[in-house]
Amino acid sequence: MKKVLLASTALFAFAGAAAAEVSLSGYAEIGVFGGDDVDTQFHNDIVINVNMSGSTDNGLEFGAKVQFDDTNGSSNINGWPRYDDEAVWVSGSFGKVTLGETDGAYDWALSEIYMGTSLFDDHSTHAGAYWFTGADGWYDNQVMRYEYSFGDFAAGISAEMDDTGTGDTIMAIGVKWSGNMGGVDLGVGLGYQSANSMDAVGLSLSAAMANGVNVTAGYADDEFWGGEWWGLGVGYTAGALLVQANYGEWDYGDSGWGLVANYDLGGGAVAMFGYGSSSSGSGGSFNGNGDDTWSAGLGLSF
Amino acid sequence: MKKVLLASTALFAFAGAAAAEVSLSGYAEIGVFGGDDVDTQFHNDIVINVNMSGSTDNGLEFGAKVQFDDTNGSSNINGWPRYDDEAVWVSGSFGKVTLGETDGAYDWALSEIYMGTSLFDDHSTHAGAYWFTGADGWYDNQVMRYEYSFGDFAAGISAEMDDTGTGDTIMAIGVKWSGNMGGVDLGVGLGYQSANSMDAVGLSLSAAMANGVNVTAGYADDEFWGGEWWGLGVGYTAGALLVQANYGEWDYGDSGWGLVANYDLGGGAVAMFGYGSSSSGSGGSFNGNGDDTWSAGLGLSF
Amino acid sequence: MKKVLLASTALFAFAGAAAAEVSLSGYAEIGVFGGDDVDTQFHNDIVINVNMSGSTDNGLEFGAKVQFDDTNGSSNINGWPRYDDEAVWVSGSFGKVTLGETDGAYDWALSEIYMGTSLFDDHSTHAGAYWFTGADGWYDNQVMRYEYSFGDFAAGISAEMDDTGTGDTIMAIGVKWSGNMGGVDLGVGLGYQSANSMDAVGLSLSAAMANGVNVTAGYADDEFWGGEWWGLGVGYTAGALLVQANYGEWDYGDSGWGLVANYDLGGGAVAMFGYGSSSSGSGGSFNGNGDDTWSAGLGLSF
Repeated sequence: MKKVLLASTALFAFAGAAAAEVSLSGYAEIGVFGGDDVDTQFHNDIVINVNMSGSTDNGLEFGAKVQFDDTNGSSNINGWPRYDDEAVWVSGSFGKVTLGETDGAYDWALSEIYMGTSLFDDHSTHAGAYWFTGADGWYDNQVMRYEYSFGDFAAGISAEMDDTGTGDTIMAIGVKWSGNMGGVDLGVGLGYQSANSMDAVGLSLSAAMANGVNVTAGYADDEFWGGEWWGLGVGYTAGALLVQANYGEWDYGDSGWGLVANYDLGGGAVAMFGYGSSSSGSGGSFNGNGDDTWSAGLGLSF
Repeated sequence: MKKVLLASTALFAFAGAAAAEVSLSGYAEIGVFGGDDVDTQFHNDIVINVNMSGSTDNGLEFGAKVQFDDTNGSSNINGWPRYDDEAVWVSGSFGKVTLGETDGAYDWALSEIYMGTSLFDDHSTHAGAYWFTGADGWYDNQVMRYEYSFGDFAAGISAEMDDTGTGDTIMAIGVKWSGNMGGVDLGVGLGYQSANSMDAVGLSLSAAMANGVNVTAGYADDEFWGGEWWGLGVGYTAGALLVQANYGEWDYGDSGWGLVANYDLGGGAVAMFGYGSSSSGSGGSFNGNGDDTWSAGLGLSF
Repeated sequence: MKKVLLASTALFAFAGAAAAEVSLSGYAEIGVFGGDDVDTQFHNDIVINVNMSGSTDNGLEFGAKVQFDDTNGSSNINGWPRYDDEAVWVSGSFGKVTLGETDGAYDWALSEIYMGTSLFDDHSTHAGAYWFTGADGWYDNQVMRYEYSFGDFAAGISAEMDDTGTGDTIMAIGVKWSGNMGGVDLGVGLGYQSANSMDAVGLSLSAAMANGVNVTAGYADDEFWGGEWWGLGVGYTAGALLVQANYGEWDYGDSGWGLVANYDLGGGAVAMFGYGSSSSGSGGSFNGNGDDTWSAGLGLSF
């Protein structure tokens, strides 16, 4: 279910050296899933990505992307194609402007603590999970984000307007840094978002050691989501293998942990297993399958 | 309206020798149709197919396909794109597993008695028609099929689950054989499907002689469709021309016959004519146009 | 919002010299718009075009096209893909036949007085605007048009049927001529459409002078739209720049003027500004944003 493609391979438009092009890529899943609230059953899913890019005569770059996704999950095969992640961008020496369904600067600056992927994102949708989404999408999910990079630093600001003119514009700001210290690849993100007398502040940290061990940590005080959250992930990568365990909890009582294992079979195919365990008064995993959920199968990138 | 493309030509993704690829093909129709229950009128239709394929480092092959079709028939031009035939597959020396909107092993093993195609499938949708679909799609139309080929034989088993946990899983099994005896290309299929105290058994036969004459025959006792059916087709192919007449009847009284003529114009264009005549108490052709229906036009494959 | 692409670049299917092919192109917009009846706000939009073409062994050409557009305007980012401009065509020495959502012969023969494009077509959707659409789309928007060219002349006839059999078939006829007289590129169109005791007659004129000045004029007496209309446009092109002002009025009282400026940045990107001013008793611009509307941004073709 993860929308980020594991790999993007197919490029098939050439209309000259500097000309605009359209490229397609795809992602498909085949497998099995289950949980407390759902019968163990088959799962398949197909996503098609359309990516467009070009550049002006004086070097301004621009592009657009849209994803065709299903309305349905695994239970209605002849579903309807739905647009997702529709956004348009322009970039140059001034930085980059993106408009559409894109991360606000709060989410943009902060890295999720989760590694790997699984059919139902069981490992990252338990009751103690959080994705630094803040207030993004509270209105029409049309976010304008400006970002600028300088060396290892990048900073962004964003705005999502209430087109009815009623609510505040949701403003966000974020900064991130990545670098290498003593052989450890480090990443730090800091974000703030505010609208309608509420705000969110978040911090994310990641450290990837040369021996394959990855540690990720996150903290947020997000009034849009109703509380204070922290989470921790410990992962390990070796060749084609990736495993990670994570734990997170909200101060309103919900918590959970997750486990993911991915094995890269090459050529775009990844064997994936995910498990999530939720402790909550309010209904289990965010993926809707209950307190204890799991999935296993293949993720296929084209 | 036939979903099987007459030809598939456009391939436009290359990302290296063994890499995953996305390809597009299309099918369009232009023509006229009529019948007892419908005014004679224009018809156009467009279908877009997205096909994805790849292989892992150790030679496992995989792929996915989805079709963009119209919700509308000929009477609402700005219809909605709808997904159809969405399926994901993995194959190797162990055989092939397909999951999604695909034939159950009953339908997979049995060949339709119909040849050619026409705008409204008039020749193959009269009241005496049958397509060996059995119980496929009774639940969510998500079928898991495993198939294995050995020489001229192939065998398959399939399962479609009731994800609500109420009904039986629909199980099916089928075998088929194709070969050449005395200059005649023969095909035989045998299938069985069962669920919820009902079952279906079917047999299909085809013989293509060197002189261009084709004979097809089918029999089924399908409790999901409510009766016993048999059908017979006699066709002739010569160069670009294909013609076929067929007859079929159900033991509950409905029967019908059909006639189709296709002429291949080359380059993906086929001139098509279809006619169907129904004798039924219950409302004529399955295509909704009445007891006597016809269509004529071009089928265009891209 | 203009559906006509500024450029069409991406072609990516080759299956042999004379074989059928599928090509994709795209168009995206990023910018800001406002008006009396709407808060000033961000706008983004993405359109994907699928174009198919081929030819038969004896030289008949054929093709089909369909556009994926949004259901939503700027206020619902995760909208639904919608088919638009779905049509199939066949052409040869006999002329060209197009069936689907295409212009009737009235609209086909007549040229709009508007040049350039803008995000909300503000310049060409004010209350005094008209696009020679006549009765096209009054039924199911499935139009059959036949056209034939001879030298600088072209003529067309078209029919749109009421598939319910109730109303008259909408018939239209049109002729157009283009040529060069004394260094001026001239265009003239004349069209007539009729159905159900109503009719429309229209005339369009254009003159493009060598110094970059363009003059366009149109007249129609269109009972389907309820009145008599005239409009005039004066434009100027110089290198990458295009500007045009236009005025139009209906004899039922509504009128308006528009202004557009386009600057071609190269590579498929065009900077666009549009403004429209409406004088009407009945609710301002056809784009729904009020009496005075404007938009500014980039149109990006891929």
